[in-house]
Amino acid sequence: MSEHKIDIFDTTLRDGEQVPGCKLNTTEKVKLALELELLGVDIIEAGFPISSPGDFHSVEQIAKAVKDVTVCGLTRAVQKDIEVAADALKFANRPRIHTGIGSSDNHIKYKFNTTREKIIERATAAVKLARNLVPDVEFFAEDAGRADIVFLAQLIEAVIAAGATVVNIPDTTGFCLPHQYAEKIAYLVSNVKGIEKATISCHCHNDLGLATANSLAGVIAGARQIECTINGIGERAGNTSLEEVAMAIKKHPELGLYTNIESTRLHGLSKQVSDTMRMPVQPNKAIVGDNAFAHSSGIHQDGFLKEATTYEIIDPMEVGADISKIVLTARSGRSALAFRFKKLGHDFTRDQVDVLYERFLAVADEKKEVTDEDLASLASSI
Amino acid sequence: MSEHKIDIFDTTLRDGEQVPGCKLNTTEKVKLALELELLGVDIIEAGFPISSPGDFHSVEQIAKAVKDVTVCGLTRAVQKDIEVAADALKFANRPRIHTGIGSSDNHIKYKFNTTREKIIERATAAVKLARNLVPDVEFFAEDAGRADIVFLAQLIEAVIAAGATVVNIPDTTGFCLPHQYAEKIAYLVSNVKGIEKATISCHCHNDLGLATANSLAGVIAGARQIECTINGIGERAGNTSLEEVAMAIKKHPELGLYTNIESTRLHGLSKQVSDTMRMPVQPNKAIVGDNAFAHSSGIHQDGFLKEATTYEIIDPMEVGADISKIVLTARSGRSALAFRFKKLGHDFTRDQVDVLYERFLAVADEKKEVTDEDLASLASSI
Repeated sequence: MSEHKIDIFDTTLRDGEQVPGCKLNTTEKVKLALELELLGVDIIEAGFPISSPGDFHSVEQIAKAVKDVTVCGLTRAVQKDIEVAADALKFANRPRIHTGIGSSDNHIKYKFNTTREKIIERATAAVKLARNLVPDVEFFAEDAGRADIVFLAQLIEAVIAAGATVVNIPDTTGFCLPHQYAEKIAYLVSNVKGIEKATISCHCHNDLGLATANSLAGVIAGARQIECTINGIGERAGNTSLEEVAMAIKKHPELGLYTNIESTRLHGLSKQVSDTMRMPVQPNKAIVGDNAFAHSSGIHQDGFLKEATTYEIIDPMEVGADISKIVLTARSGRSALAFRFKKLGHDFTRDQVDVLYERFLAVADEKKEVTDEDLASLASSI
Repeated sequence: MSEHKIDIFDTTLRDGEQVPGCKLNTTEKVKLALELELLGVDIIEAGFPISSPGDFHSVEQIAKAVKDVTVCGLTRAVQKDIEVAADALKFANRPRIHTGIGSSDNHIKYKFNTTREKIIERATAAVKLARNLVPDVEFFAEDAGRADIVFLAQLIEAVIAAGATVVNIPDTTGFCLPHQYAEKIAYLVSNVKGIEKATISCHCHNDLGLATANSLAGVIAGARQIECTINGIGERAGNTSLEEVAMAIKKHPELGLYTNIESTRLHGLSKQVSDTMRMPVQPNKAIVGDNAFAHSSGIHQDGFLKEATTYEIIDPMEVGADISKIVLTARSGRSALAFRFKKLGHDFTRDQVDVLYERFLAVADEKKEVTDEDLASLASSI
């Protein structure tokens, strides 16, 4: 099977950073950008240069600091935005301007109070201007998830003709179901003249919990770039989680896709982003949550202790996590109890474990978690 | 279009409660069960009666406390488990026993050290025993996500013939991609003799962030029950989030599916579960996260203030959340600033807002969030 590279476009420092409470100063942004480069992302969206002098400065410093990775700046389809972004990116080895405009009738009517024709005019003018300033221009068709597909195809065809190198099909409001998002991408692949000249990009939001699935559906249908953030942070319910799409692609080689993500760095960078932005990651977050590799029920612990792959599809080492946890609670079974006693140096017989297990349950029914101290006290009771 | 009811099987009190730190006492479990009944779930999996005397008691008390909702107890395919579960459920108006065994070759070999034939024997014996004790028996084919599809179909056919009323196809390790999970369900619908006598259930784990998408793919392919938890808690990266599947089904009437979930109760119950179990919900969690309805970038705020549907597919009131938030940060624009000034009683001209906006950005570049106090001080500067 042929192998297709999927570009990872990280927007932790732009869509992630615009979240309430997540704003970073330039030093923090540059530090994270260097970590993202080590992680192996292909593009870093460094900020929205026109938005504030502070963000302009951050984009400029990131462009100076990183080497091979593409540095991207966001703009509206507005002349000044684009000129300011090009200025902020002037030191980048690989600058990219990301410009765009609403594509759904909802956005065209309520946000822009204009017509489809005018939208195409403004979009192509913005792309042409950007292409005069940098060689790599990504166009976003905002709210493409709810856009009329025939108009969306016209718009995408026009911006590619105007010089767009990447066309981003955002599900801005997180509305699409995976098969619907896939159909949209597949339609563009089949119906847009010149589509082979541009990379199709997925930018999905998580309002219904479907950002990861939609991005995967998009690349299966022919997109070749995923826009995502560490820990899935971003506007409202956030963006696609970088760690989830990277590991899903890695664990499913039958898709014939790959990324350059160095997965062992995922846990460390997740913690760094969470700490720097003070955005907690819930324990049950996929890949990077504290409990992602914790086993607590007796049924699971028993299987896991016999053979880890019974309940684990990812070795925690593969994503830089601590080793899997066997937590003792009232739902744990005899095999986990015997395992933990053994680790504490006690090699009890089967009959002894049976007796100890009843005593263990009496303790466990009263507590959230049974500790090594509790176990020592139990061990001395026999 | 015909409308199909999707049963919501809540396992917050079983798969959720077995998580490290989430153990509840009987009073807490009964209180949450009554809330789940008000939320409109169809089945409450109340616990795993054999696991401890405390959990037996909890299941018994929940069975007494709730009225119309089905109360379910988990068991292994083991005689004593099933008898104890039936005993714990004796006061339930609608008792269900949930029994099952591994179905993947991985589980059959490493966890059970047995053969496919013996698995079918144990599965059918367990279902028959359970059907002698209660009229409603659900069978789970553990690790069905990685099971051989032909064997899985044989197993499901055998347990339906033995009397199973519900057949649960768990993606125990959270491995499947949505199209793969859908194919599995579709295969069973087409190839299992007697499948029309049973309800097919989806039980998906979130190890790759795909539990919600897989459950939706399952019901689109013909399953009619979803197993899920409030806030998506559960083993490792958790289970399907009840709030996500319920709202995705509600927002996509074109699927021809519905649930009985009273969505305005979702935020309240999410908070209650999080507080009682001390399991934090991350701000960017879909539907129930603190930021799920917060708008912070200028582009989004501008659109949102013109017309909410430009950036919101769910009215926060619909899920019992506070009204949408407009948070002022360095990424905010003039329209959000003017909006907030207006709310504070200042009706500035366009030119005044332009001047104030520059001063606002200087403040915002230094802070995570600009407060009403900061705005008052800015207002007095003009």
